Amino acid sequence: MIPTSPTQPVLADLYRPVSDDLIEVERIFDAELAGDLPFIDKLCERVRSYRGKMLRPALLLLTAKTFGPCDERAHTLAAVVEMVHMATLVHDDVLDEASERRKQPTVASVEGNVAAVLLGDYLISHAFHLCSSLDSQFASRRVGATTNIVCEGELLQNLHCGDMALSEDVYFDIVRRKTGVLTAVASELGAYAGGASGEAMSAAYEFGLACGIAFQIVDDVLDIVGDPSRVGKTLGQDILLGKLTLPTILFMQFEGDDSKSLAESLSSGRSVNRQSLADMLREKGCIDAALAVARSHVKRSQQHLEVLPTGAARDCLMGMAEFIMRRRF
Amino acid sequence: MIPTSPTQPVLADLYRPVSDDLIEVERIFDAELAGDLPFIDKLCERVRSYRGKMLRPALLLLTAKTFGPCDERAHTLAAVVEMVHMATLVHDDVLDEASERRKQPTVASVEGNVAAVLLGDYLISHAFHLCSSLDSQFASRRVGATTNIVCEGELLQNLHCGDMALSEDVYFDIVRRKTGVLTAVASELGAYAGGASGEAMSAAYEFGLACGIAFQIVDDVLDIVGDPSRVGKTLGQDILLGKLTLPTILFMQFEGDDSKSLAESLSSGRSVNRQSLADMLREKGCIDAALAVARSHVKRSQQHLEVLPTGAARDCLMGMAEFIMRRRF
Repeated sequence: MIPTSPTQPVLADLYRPVSDDLIEVERIFDAELAGDLPFIDKLCERVRSYRGKMLRPALLLLTAKTFGPCDERAHTLAAVVEMVHMATLVHDDVLDEASERRKQPTVASVEGNVAAVLLGDYLISHAFHLCSSLDSQFASRRVGATTNIVCEGELLQNLHCGDMALSEDVYFDIVRRKTGVLTAVASELGAYAGGASGEAMSAAYEFGLACGIAFQIVDDVLDIVGDPSRVGKTLGQDILLGKLTLPTILFMQFEGDDSKSLAESLSSGRSVNRQSLADMLREKGCIDAALAVARSHVKRSQQHLEVLPTGAARDCLMGMAEFIMRRRF
Repeated sequence: MIPTSPTQPVLADLYRPVSDDLIEVERIFDAELAGDLPFIDKLCERVRSYRGKMLRPALLLLTAKTFGPCDERAHTLAAVVEMVHMATLVHDDVLDEASERRKQPTVASVEGNVAAVLLGDYLISHAFHLCSSLDSQFASRRVGATTNIVCEGELLQNLHCGDMALSEDVYFDIVRRKTGVLTAVASELGAYAGGASGEAMSAAYEFGLACGIAFQIVDDVLDIVGDPSRVGKTLGQDILLGKLTLPTILFMQFEGDDSKSLAESLSSGRSVNRQSLADMLREKGCIDAALAVARSHVKRSQQHLEVLPTGAARDCLMGMAEFIMRRRF
């Protein structure tokens, strides 16, 4: 089971060193999206309600903060990574046919797929536009290189939809590309904004990468065993769309009637009872095993953090890595 | 009817001053999209088959060429605008549910909507990434500002789908945003790459804007009266999706049973016979009137061109503007 401890700090505590900075990030985010067409402002209003945890901006700002106060460049870059993330969420909800996100109906389910595709395009365009407002091209290059890889990850995942022989290697390649590199670049750009050395920027990148991979594994576990009322988004989508993730990949390695039967159901689009699947995976230890892998990435992320300057901000980054394992939503 | 003249030069003649440059643009385009995942290379192969007329790169290069030889910056920017255009085509085909483009099946129809949405994202990401390879942020800012407006245009068009009271003003606002600004920025960036003055850059922008608007009006006319075997893409999509365009907007201004009946059919999703509609619009002069408006934009574009240096390149730009009115595909 996912370990919990009531004595561990909540997310708001971890964000405290950058709480004023996060307000500035929200202001920049909103200002970038403000336009002359009221109906688009209304669409963006819905996107704002997605803006729940602000994990990537917090990661970026806390990394910058380990080197000193966050400046305008850090704030802008934090808004950029959040906007890129929002764009991927909006398009993901179209692709996954999800109806709920952060306890709200998705843009796709309310406004239709056409509006959701276009709104995702609008967000990614604004993310690049905002990034290009900085003096140097460095961040634009890093963000562009990152979104290239994110799209590759999504395409790779789509290619392997319904692939009941998906290997762990390909799964981790998908996870690294579609989730890992964005948290990696968030942390790297935080170090960059903080004026870090090349070595520290690399360490920050590796920290973010390991956090992102751990986060995605937990996300995939929650899709199977999470409580929908707490997670606040449509669950069971991976099963529904025939996407194997770490727990089901591990389960498939037990050759037998159960795994054969699951493979047949998933690949033929027959509905699979989420609760029964969760019970079966738990019983075989696949949930615990997947979470153990996530934990190993959290540990690795914390080792990379040791290269960064000590202090309250770094302590909070350590805590954020821990938080990944305690996520319920 | 659309005027034709066999003595006018064909597109290949108009491209002659930049034919070597266009080969370099194709090389940059392909190099930017080359990745480590063979199945994505295969998807991009299909996109390459869309790359028909290369109008926007030619516009950019010819504009640059009026000032002198095209350099690496001009080639890169020409590849960027083409990649942005390709991204919009791939997403448009998802949104319009079109099955054919440049006489080829669309990505969406062969690979599915999910792959097409992701491939469009991949192209836009690579466009920004390629643009960020230049030394200055200027082009990134202009391209980002432009794609913001393109998305607004698409969203605005989607908002007015099925709106049988769509005004000419809103139609032109949609056309300016979704098509005009991209050809405008292509020409502007050509002038920029050529080292033009601010005044010449503005003139180039206005030239491209007027060309783009004229091009879109002709495109909308062809959607109704074009020969599918010559145009090479699915036609009649605007009628099918209940989108009014200039010819049908003009028709609606004739108050009577015919326009009432058309409005009822389009808004209720009842199928409308394309040939009968074309005949009816022709009879009322709506096709000729729409083409006259397109021609006025072509004329205006040519007036702006007069600010640019004289020579073979400018003559070809004049010819490209003319070509818009002769388009059959």
